[in-house]
Amino acid sequence: MTSRSSLTTRTNPARPGNLRGHNLGLALRCVASASGEISRAGISTSTGLNRSTASSLVDELVSGGLVRELGATARAGMGRPPTVLALASDGPAGLGLDINVDYVSACLVDLGGTVRYQHVVEQDQRGHTPQQVLTRLAESTLAAVAASGLTLFGTAVAVPGLINRASGTVAMAPNLGWHDLDLAEVLRQTFGEHVTLDNEANYAALSEDELLRSDQSFLYVNGQVGVGGGLVLNGEPYRGRHGWSGEIGHQTVDRDGPVCGCGQRGCLEQYAGYEAILRAAGLGGGPGPGFGLRSTAGLIRDRADGGDQRTIDALTTVGATLGVVLADCLNLLDLDRVVLGGIYRELSPWIVPEVEREVAARFIGADWARPAIGTAGHGAEAPALGAARSVVRDILNDPVPWLSR
Amino acid sequence: MTSRSSLTTRTNPARPGNLRGHNLGLALRCVASASGEISRAGISTSTGLNRSTASSLVDELVSGGLVRELGATARAGMGRPPTVLALASDGPAGLGLDINVDYVSACLVDLGGTVRYQHVVEQDQRGHTPQQVLTRLAESTLAAVAASGLTLFGTAVAVPGLINRASGTVAMAPNLGWHDLDLAEVLRQTFGEHVTLDNEANYAALSEDELLRSDQSFLYVNGQVGVGGGLVLNGEPYRGRHGWSGEIGHQTVDRDGPVCGCGQRGCLEQYAGYEAILRAAGLGGGPGPGFGLRSTAGLIRDRADGGDQRTIDALTTVGATLGVVLADCLNLLDLDRVVLGGIYRELSPWIVPEVEREVAARFIGADWARPAIGTAGHGAEAPALGAARSVVRDILNDPVPWLSR
Repeated sequence: MTSRSSLTTRTNPARPGNLRGHNLGLALRCVASASGEISRAGISTSTGLNRSTASSLVDELVSGGLVRELGATARAGMGRPPTVLALASDGPAGLGLDINVDYVSACLVDLGGTVRYQHVVEQDQRGHTPQQVLTRLAESTLAAVAASGLTLFGTAVAVPGLINRASGTVAMAPNLGWHDLDLAEVLRQTFGEHVTLDNEANYAALSEDELLRSDQSFLYVNGQVGVGGGLVLNGEPYRGRHGWSGEIGHQTVDRDGPVCGCGQRGCLEQYAGYEAILRAAGLGGGPGPGFGLRSTAGLIRDRADGGDQRTIDALTTVGATLGVVLADCLNLLDLDRVVLGGIYRELSPWIVPEVEREVAARFIGADWARPAIGTAGHGAEAPALGAARSVVRDILNDPVPWLSR
Repeated sequence: MTSRSSLTTRTNPARPGNLRGHNLGLALRCVASASGEISRAGISTSTGLNRSTASSLVDELVSGGLVRELGATARAGMGRPPTVLALASDGPAGLGLDINVDYVSACLVDLGGTVRYQHVVEQDQRGHTPQQVLTRLAESTLAAVAASGLTLFGTAVAVPGLINRASGTVAMAPNLGWHDLDLAEVLRQTFGEHVTLDNEANYAALSEDELLRSDQSFLYVNGQVGVGGGLVLNGEPYRGRHGWSGEIGHQTVDRDGPVCGCGQRGCLEQYAGYEAILRAAGLGGGPGPGFGLRSTAGLIRDRADGGDQRTIDALTTVGATLGVVLADCLNLLDLDRVVLGGIYRELSPWIVPEVEREVAARFIGADWARPAIGTAGHGAEAPALGAARSVVRDILNDPVPWLSR
């Protein structure tokens, strides 16, 4: 058999039209990632751009408010000492919002990723329109932005559901009761033109700064009423074709199991979502609407800490069930680690050992290398923080929209 | 709370040392991906490199045997008509080998990906040493390489197991009885220095040329004695941290299910591997060693075609079980498609509808978009073909090792 076929090939043309934008981003990321002091000359060395080009790019970044000149370096020597550069902490800001079932959260970061404002409020969204939810959130948040003295560049909003990023619509967020909702349109009325949406676990994954910077591949698991997953492969978010990756809450644990909100049976969130944990621990439907995620996790943790056997058994079972599903994910993706966030972070003393046990038994490469099972660096504030940082990532990846605003 | 953290940033310096190599690859891939006639001027236009640079790169590719000048274009006009360029069909060749439990396969492709030699032999490897298996394979294969007139650049070998690509060792290939085997060392003695190893399903995925070229994201499922998976994300192979991605044969279908060769219970391959299908269809342990995969698939297909209800029921169950596991994979990765290869390709009339049904029911985004469930373009020859093409991909990605050999 003989077949003619051309192979997958990639060309990477450097077109004059986008060359300066590309190089502005290159220079800006050089400043952002510098481990010590960096000057115009250092940018020239790191990027391979010639000195006059590098210098003119820096001038544009300085005048555009993205880079600040901190003064001369201490180095002695002939001629004028080079000027140290840093990301501007008084320039653009990214706002992240997280709308979950029983809390809302906001976070403002500057260009360096420093948190300048953060707010988590436990409130139940069920029974309120998206407009009502956002209006309540906008009042306090926009006042905080104004007080920061920063310029809001964009707003990123985390929603626990299926998001169509291109259109800015929520396909479905069953636990919020939202379906085919043009949330971007509602948001623009309050927060301006530059709004982006994503699944809450995808944004939460972006709060794991160290892991991103070291190019790790990981699955962030966000235990809430549902169970969300955010995938990062080699330090970059992997969102899938439509932005729907990471839906581990609907992995099938048992085809004959309890009915799930998605219409199927035996999905993971029926065993490992926090309402399922409450039921298994004998806490019925939970402490009631408005009691909130953090309080719920605290309640369960206190009971387990106090030695309540039913609660401990419930958590052990949740950990094992989660471990089997995560071993499947690891066999499919051969990741560096799993990061347990949301309620699992609070309950990690009972959950992590069980997950580790199942992964050790079921991950096919476990005799040669074992992925780390870790807990998240941030709690309920993680999705809003990751969302805010995603806005700043956008500027670092392409500063032109900010510079030409 | 205020936290200082630098953000994930990437610099992409163009260092002088690798600039020419980078540009040689750019020019070569321009020739490879040209949809019509391409000349030196066309390469300059496509890459943004200036004319004299583009021309000198092409000269080096021509003299290095990677590009051929086909003669003048038909275009009338002033001056000398441009020379049409094409990938050399008489230059380097990539050899792919596939060592499976009950067959071996070899495939030789030229730089354009055209198959120049292909051979599949049904033989049972069990009870033979790796040296014996490779010596038998080398005799016929190396004679074919010599007869082709091409120059062997590299050999890529597909093995159904966990491969440590960096060291060239087989961590384990349980169905072959191989463990911690330095296969690259055995291979080098026969096939030369440039040998690479990978899992058989990873290579099989690379045989899906059209899907790679159109930057699709897909999971290639290779049904054999085991069930292998090869992942391609946005047109690029995704191998995971150690090269162990795609191990869907060990996804847990039922924690209390039958014992698997991996030591766990209820893995997918205990339900959907071809020995499991034979048992379910009432064909016992199969037609015996050496009967071979293709004959086995043919036997099952003939029975199902003939209306044997037990066989049809077995295939329906296999399709549904596979569908549940694939829906999990799709929920995690939001892929464009699944490609069913190996035995599933032969049995697709019974398998595909069941997989489609489960994915439609369980893929969380199914109401908005449904991933395609397709069958592989190639049968038992897919892993060897993909392996051979991987060698050619390596040259297109970086022609310097060939040019400086």
